[in-house]
Amino acid sequence: MRLLRANVQTGIISYERAPEGWKGLGGRGLVARFLLDEVPPQCDPLGPNNKLIWAPGLLVGYMLSSLDRISLGGKSPLTGGVKEANAGGSTGMRMAWLRLFALIIEGDAAEDGGWRLLFVDEDGAHFEPADNLVGLGLEDTALRLIDRYGGKISISAIGQGGERLYRTAGITHLDKDNNLTRISARGGLGAVMGSKHLKAVVFNHSKANPPPVVDKALFKEASKRYIKALQEHPQTSEVYTNYGTAAMVSLCNTLGGMPTRSFSSGSFEGADKISGEAFREINLSRGGEHTHACMAGCIIRCSNVFLGPDNEMAVTPIEYETISLMGSNLGIDDPDVIARLNRIANDIGVDTIEVGAALGVAAEAGVFEFGDGERAIRVMEEVREGTPLGRIIGNGAVITGQVLGVTRIPTVKGQAFSAYDPRAIKGTGVTYATSPQGADHTAGLTIRAQVDHTDPKGQADLSRPAQYKMAGYDSLGACIFGGFALAPDMVRDLINARYGWTVDNDYLVELGRKTILLEREFNRLAGFTAKDDRIPEWMTREPLAPTNAVFDVPDEDLDSIFDP
Amino acid sequence: MRLLRANVQTGIISYERAPEGWKGLGGRGLVARFLLDEVPPQCDPLGPNNKLIWAPGLLVGYMLSSLDRISLGGKSPLTGGVKEANAGGSTGMRMAWLRLFALIIEGDAAEDGGWRLLFVDEDGAHFEPADNLVGLGLEDTALRLIDRYGGKISISAIGQGGERLYRTAGITHLDKDNNLTRISARGGLGAVMGSKHLKAVVFNHSKANPPPVVDKALFKEASKRYIKALQEHPQTSEVYTNYGTAAMVSLCNTLGGMPTRSFSSGSFEGADKISGEAFREINLSRGGEHTHACMAGCIIRCSNVFLGPDNEMAVTPIEYETISLMGSNLGIDDPDVIARLNRIANDIGVDTIEVGAALGVAAEAGVFEFGDGERAIRVMEEVREGTPLGRIIGNGAVITGQVLGVTRIPTVKGQAFSAYDPRAIKGTGVTYATSPQGADHTAGLTIRAQVDHTDPKGQADLSRPAQYKMAGYDSLGACIFGGFALAPDMVRDLINARYGWTVDNDYLVELGRKTILLEREFNRLAGFTAKDDRIPEWMTREPLAPTNAVFDVPDEDLDSIFDP
Repeated sequence: MRLLRANVQTGIISYERAPEGWKGLGGRGLVARFLLDEVPPQCDPLGPNNKLIWAPGLLVGYMLSSLDRISLGGKSPLTGGVKEANAGGSTGMRMAWLRLFALIIEGDAAEDGGWRLLFVDEDGAHFEPADNLVGLGLEDTALRLIDRYGGKISISAIGQGGERLYRTAGITHLDKDNNLTRISARGGLGAVMGSKHLKAVVFNHSKANPPPVVDKALFKEASKRYIKALQEHPQTSEVYTNYGTAAMVSLCNTLGGMPTRSFSSGSFEGADKISGEAFREINLSRGGEHTHACMAGCIIRCSNVFLGPDNEMAVTPIEYETISLMGSNLGIDDPDVIARLNRIANDIGVDTIEVGAALGVAAEAGVFEFGDGERAIRVMEEVREGTPLGRIIGNGAVITGQVLGVTRIPTVKGQAFSAYDPRAIKGTGVTYATSPQGADHTAGLTIRAQVDHTDPKGQADLSRPAQYKMAGYDSLGACIFGGFALAPDMVRDLINARYGWTVDNDYLVELGRKTILLEREFNRLAGFTAKDDRIPEWMTREPLAPTNAVFDVPDEDLDSIFDP
Repeated sequence: MRLLRANVQTGIISYERAPEGWKGLGGRGLVARFLLDEVPPQCDPLGPNNKLIWAPGLLVGYMLSSLDRISLGGKSPLTGGVKEANAGGSTGMRMAWLRLFALIIEGDAAEDGGWRLLFVDEDGAHFEPADNLVGLGLEDTALRLIDRYGGKISISAIGQGGERLYRTAGITHLDKDNNLTRISARGGLGAVMGSKHLKAVVFNHSKANPPPVVDKALFKEASKRYIKALQEHPQTSEVYTNYGTAAMVSLCNTLGGMPTRSFSSGSFEGADKISGEAFREINLSRGGEHTHACMAGCIIRCSNVFLGPDNEMAVTPIEYETISLMGSNLGIDDPDVIARLNRIANDIGVDTIEVGAALGVAAEAGVFEFGDGERAIRVMEEVREGTPLGRIIGNGAVITGQVLGVTRIPTVKGQAFSAYDPRAIKGTGVTYATSPQGADHTAGLTIRAQVDHTDPKGQADLSRPAQYKMAGYDSLGACIFGGFALAPDMVRDLINARYGWTVDNDYLVELGRKTILLEREFNRLAGFTAKDDRIPEWMTREPLAPTNAVFDVPDEDLDSIFDP
């Protein structure tokens, strides 16, 4: 249980034994504990007292399907609170192979003002100058780093977004094939990295080196059970495999919850043109890879490599959240336009959800017309260039609304909604409102529950267990889709086999619950109150077509959701 | 005690008897009570649930020197909390002559989306279309309104800043000579007015009509005592009369507390060129009026009408806060450049303190070089035009810093410091930190105390009585300078004479204390916590030349300042 601590300001790098209190933690749970222990809750998120942590989940390192995710954490410059942003790709796996329980980056930028990268391999870690990478997008950054260090590396890097302290900036990782872009996207952690003038971390480890397992037989057996369940579940063996997350377009549009023209409708007339089926058909017709694994060993393979009209890679992956926030939310029904917007965002290293929401707000302000894809692309180029307008959009939906005089801003705790309108999918609205992370569908999506999603009653009771489970999965390193199959008994056996512990079936939910309580404590100390657990006021009075729902889950339900 | 209530959305206008609980209140104290009673603390400040109040102080209407101020109030879109912004000029006086205890503006913009003005005279009040005034600056707006309604009116209006929901937008009034600009500047109340599509309120009352007084003899006697004290105090009879607030340049610069190049120094090498003496000499040499009353009857006459090189009016008035925030804070030492910046800000209707601080942040970001006055003027023109950069600056220092990637942001509760660096003048720093209004020197300036202003000890004990007194004056309608002479016994006698009450010498401070407690309660309900009562973290570690002071008043002193 060693952790690597690197101070950009002083240049001091040390390997340490993890504190006693951190034992048994990983991923999102570790992020929460770390923030409470090491980051002053009221510090400036972009100042020297904020820190970043890389924390692989508890079951990471085995190339077990959908279970190698890396959690990044710090105080969010977007929300001002706790932030954990996890991603697939190879970073978590390689950290486990390097036997790194965690990586902590701290301190201000180096005294000389220069930029650094941190290189980590079996022999140790050191800073290198990285001024030659400054100003580069992630595509060029990744190419140069792979060129320099070879293909057996993992990378966590920022683009121009993080360099410029954009509050939409994430930290981007490579997928298993060294493709971009698996991004720890939400909450602006890329800006924290940028504030420390750290362009990239390179993890080098050429051969597979899974961590030792206490009970190999049990681990193998539980793994098999889990894989079998994944193979038998239609969602993970068919739907996401064939269509990726884009499959969600039809479902969400049918429920009247797909953000359309800046959350002014929940149903998009062009939905068929940007559906999972449409993307699949176009991509396959161009010879694209529409079933692609981001992590080694994943059998769901919800990712894709989407080709443009020239049959060259346009973007990888294209996901539902982007399709909606940069598609229907902007009135755009052209898959190739969405892919181009997505690619620019990926190269800058910004969250497509947050930037998509900001673009929607900008369209409402008249910056471009809904549906005008070429103009939207031009605005995204401004985000890349760092013009005043680009910087506005690059700082997210709240700032865009404030600067451009738009009051219909779709955020909670300063973070934009994902592609589920909280008025039509109220359980997810409860998650948006109450998650310590800010609005985020991966914090507890309720859309698959067989309920009336517009009924305000009972939604908190739907959201609560979903949030606990997701916080648990996020601590294991499990992808949200792994959760379709990863039952409590499998988690129990995998964890006990891996660590020699004796947890029971309640472990997963309890892990999640404890994590959320730690996160709420950090937020409380940072100054959050019940007012921060609210869907924006305008959504409580503006009905959403076609359901005409408003957000009307009672405040009491929001305020009591995590009560013991 | 009648109040006028006007709903822009419905067009309904009514005269009402003021609620029992509002009796005995006026000005700032009434604003606080009104907000708690009528405005949901967590509402969107730019949404339909926020309201605006015009509340003359308790002693307004008599043309008694420095005692006719009008308090405007609402939930601030800049701070998210309570906001009272008072101003001189004729608005308070004319409201008193119209026997208006208060004017309340409520509702959303009218359904047709059009703009309105509210016209009030002895016969009643009505809305009129004002679309023809939209897009006009305040100079043109005032000219047209005076042209239309004659010269015996008072106006409260917004410029393009308020129309565009700039969080720096104030509400501007005429002075006694129908000159612009007395502005209820701080906290963005102009944006609240803009959100309701209300361009102006016109108060028409041609002849003097002071409210009845219960004990005329006592009122006259106390007035005389007060005027005599004003005449005998060197500050109000000489310094401010001759130099206006610009007299503060030398004092503040000497103490090392004058904001220079975005609060990176407390001493400006060009201070002599922009001192009170310099402005006076230039203005008098051009035939300017350097001793000018903004309110009828004022004998201090700290205002001025500053002429440009062409001997035409450049701006009225030019004040210390502007001279520093738009001068030394931008590295600008040319009085005429400062006057031009000031005039543009006045015409747009934005707070020169907030915009000056934002310009400083922009200069740090490299938008223009410190000292480049022509480029600064060009940026202010962008604020007028509403370009993306202009909108950024127009939304204040926090948004400017966030968008442009600057972390040295000089604000508390989102509101920029006035022209006293809190590291060098720590008592005023305590006021900035703890005032429910956000950073504001008029909430309790401590610079005249004979203490070591850089010593962290005892500063809370300096700030507390200053804050109580100022909140008391703000409830009476008294100008901060009236306070040099307006002793508790005079307040007692004036109030008892005016209303037939039996208050004692503690009345002033107690009135202020109660007001601040109400304001803090509103902020608490709006979600404020102790974290909002803090000077920015960077000022606790970045020493300020030449004193090398950091802000080091202990958090406990801030947190306990208003304890009983």
